Amino acid sequence: MADDPKNNEEISELGEFPLIKHLTGKIKLKNKSSKCGVGDDAAVLDYPQKQVIVTTDLLTEGIHFNLMYTPLKHLGYKAAVVNFSDIYAMNAQPKQIIIAIAVSNKFTTKMIDELYSGIYLACDNYRVDVVGGDTSSSLTGLTITITAIGEASPKEITYRHGAEENDLICVSGDLGGAYMGLQLLEREKSIFEKDTSIQPDLKGYKYILERQLKPEARSDIIQILKKNNINPTSMIDISDGLSSELFHICYESKVGCKIFSEKIPVNPETVRMANEFNIEPVVAALNGGEDYELLFTVPLKMFDNTAKYTEISIIGHITNSSEGKQLITGDGKSMELKSQGWDGLKQDL
Amino acid sequence: MADDPKNNEEISELGEFPLIKHLTGKIKLKNKSSKCGVGDDAAVLDYPQKQVIVTTDLLTEGIHFNLMYTPLKHLGYKAAVVNFSDIYAMNAQPKQIIIAIAVSNKFTTKMIDELYSGIYLACDNYRVDVVGGDTSSSLTGLTITITAIGEASPKEITYRHGAEENDLICVSGDLGGAYMGLQLLEREKSIFEKDTSIQPDLKGYKYILERQLKPEARSDIIQILKKNNINPTSMIDISDGLSSELFHICYESKVGCKIFSEKIPVNPETVRMANEFNIEPVVAALNGGEDYELLFTVPLKMFDNTAKYTEISIIGHITNSSEGKQLITGDGKSMELKSQGWDGLKQDL
Repeated sequence: MADDPKNNEEISELGEFPLIKHLTGKIKLKNKSSKCGVGDDAAVLDYPQKQVIVTTDLLTEGIHFNLMYTPLKHLGYKAAVVNFSDIYAMNAQPKQIIIAIAVSNKFTTKMIDELYSGIYLACDNYRVDVVGGDTSSSLTGLTITITAIGEASPKEITYRHGAEENDLICVSGDLGGAYMGLQLLEREKSIFEKDTSIQPDLKGYKYILERQLKPEARSDIIQILKKNNINPTSMIDISDGLSSELFHICYESKVGCKIFSEKIPVNPETVRMANEFNIEPVVAALNGGEDYELLFTVPLKMFDNTAKYTEISIIGHITNSSEGKQLITGDGKSMELKSQGWDGLKQDL
Repeated sequence: MADDPKNNEEISELGEFPLIKHLTGKIKLKNKSSKCGVGDDAAVLDYPQKQVIVTTDLLTEGIHFNLMYTPLKHLGYKAAVVNFSDIYAMNAQPKQIIIAIAVSNKFTTKMIDELYSGIYLACDNYRVDVVGGDTSSSLTGLTITITAIGEASPKEITYRHGAEENDLICVSGDLGGAYMGLQLLEREKSIFEKDTSIQPDLKGYKYILERQLKPEARSDIIQILKKNNINPTSMIDISDGLSSELFHICYESKVGCKIFSEKIPVNPETVRMANEFNIEPVVAALNGGEDYELLFTVPLKMFDNTAKYTEISIIGHITNSSEGKQLITGDGKSMELKSQGWDGLKQDL
């Protein structure tokens, strides 16, 4: 599309229908369940044997992303992947997405192409079809809402509410990296804003930058669980930090938890950046969001079967709700887990 | 909720999870296909016998609505209904919605409650379940993205691409009212902005104001078609004006059309307001959007069966694509139909 004369055209000049045709004209549907995609009032899907899993995530400019340091292609990729992550967190497979974007007229067709190329790349990598959307104007900034649709057989579907006392608490990958990547980007942005002759120094931090800018969803973990007949009793994806997600599982399952700070997986690069910022790495892991790892519980008897995978860490276990939510620190002390966003919930319920 | 002390609290003070609980705590699922709603990573739906229809519409403040004259409850109602309309336009039944909203911190909990009360009212009226959502911040204004999910058996589903030569072109209800309602609201707004002592004069225009502010989706038409075994060959809902929707059907079905301006249904109130604005009523019907009526084609043999319903007008017929898209005026002259948004499409395809 590099030679397309429309590339630098403002989208308002191109017109809505040509823009939609331009963005969606090359789509080829991959999944059997995708019966009819873009081009009608609605998409038509076919799930005769499976249950249908649906989730939506909305990203707004200035809140969820900053276009000063977020390449549009990465943003599109991430906007899709965070939805896939929600589908995997139900122990299901994403199959379709619908994209709704609102853009101000400062955006050119080339910019929208970049955004869509990221969405399409994510869809190719995860074998998901784009089956519909809505392209619209906004007075300010960019809003992206993606709805993902997936499938699972009823017995596979894993909710937040199934955790039971003594279940093992597991997390995939490592935590806190996306948060430290964001801190680094924000720091370099504010230095650059003060003196535009200073170029951002991002060397040596490829991993945490990728964690922030181009996260992946853990389809591999879902495959491991399936191949090994590990049926988690509860599962959630870690988008708001480990603490908050543990609160969700404990709240929905009516249980408590005990986790060990030394068991929480943190990448060395995350530790290094946290040290630069004088942040305890475990605090970044507990409260930093956007890691899109999976947090799940399995029965105690699954210990051997689960522990052998380096991509899965067992960080503690489920307790009776009367024991609260405990974090055991390196020196063996017990602290009460805190979680942002949950303040005031007790009064409300 | 009127006595709730949190009513005037800014949503940022309440916290995300209490807000979600507050908004969704009273939901009761009505439909068999809604297996699991709000409160997990994703909703779980069950459609073993039907195909699944999915559509999304995004509304942004300042583009799709103006809060100066749009009550939030009406806005919520409309945001839901426009999605139901897309599902009906597939000859399907809406069953679930997922709501994603982004709000700036100028919004109070009471305002969000108002918005949601409109969405819930629409869901009650159309027997649709709210099964999920995403509540998020924005730097400026309000964005609402609703994804609707519906069901239909494969043989019922009606696409845009099935219209054939000689098929009758039908529309439900009347057209142009929502557009003239918007013109009235905009006129009164600009008078009020110049002199705030002058109160808006909206008397005598209840119908067109409701068409703009609180439209309904034509579930009744879908029922009429079903009961009488009328299977439309193509269908679309009229959100962008009759011309534009006819262009979609002709484009997807590779046909032309001939419609008669005197057959286009226009309400007397719409005519009266159009006259005040020196607009030809038929122009409001052809180019004004947001009527959410249904435009569909039926085989010629269905004439008697269709013509007997006062809620359905037969406005013309499908022709060979070589005949183009014609509007026959009252004096028998033929004009080429024009449609906004389609400019430049020929070059692009």
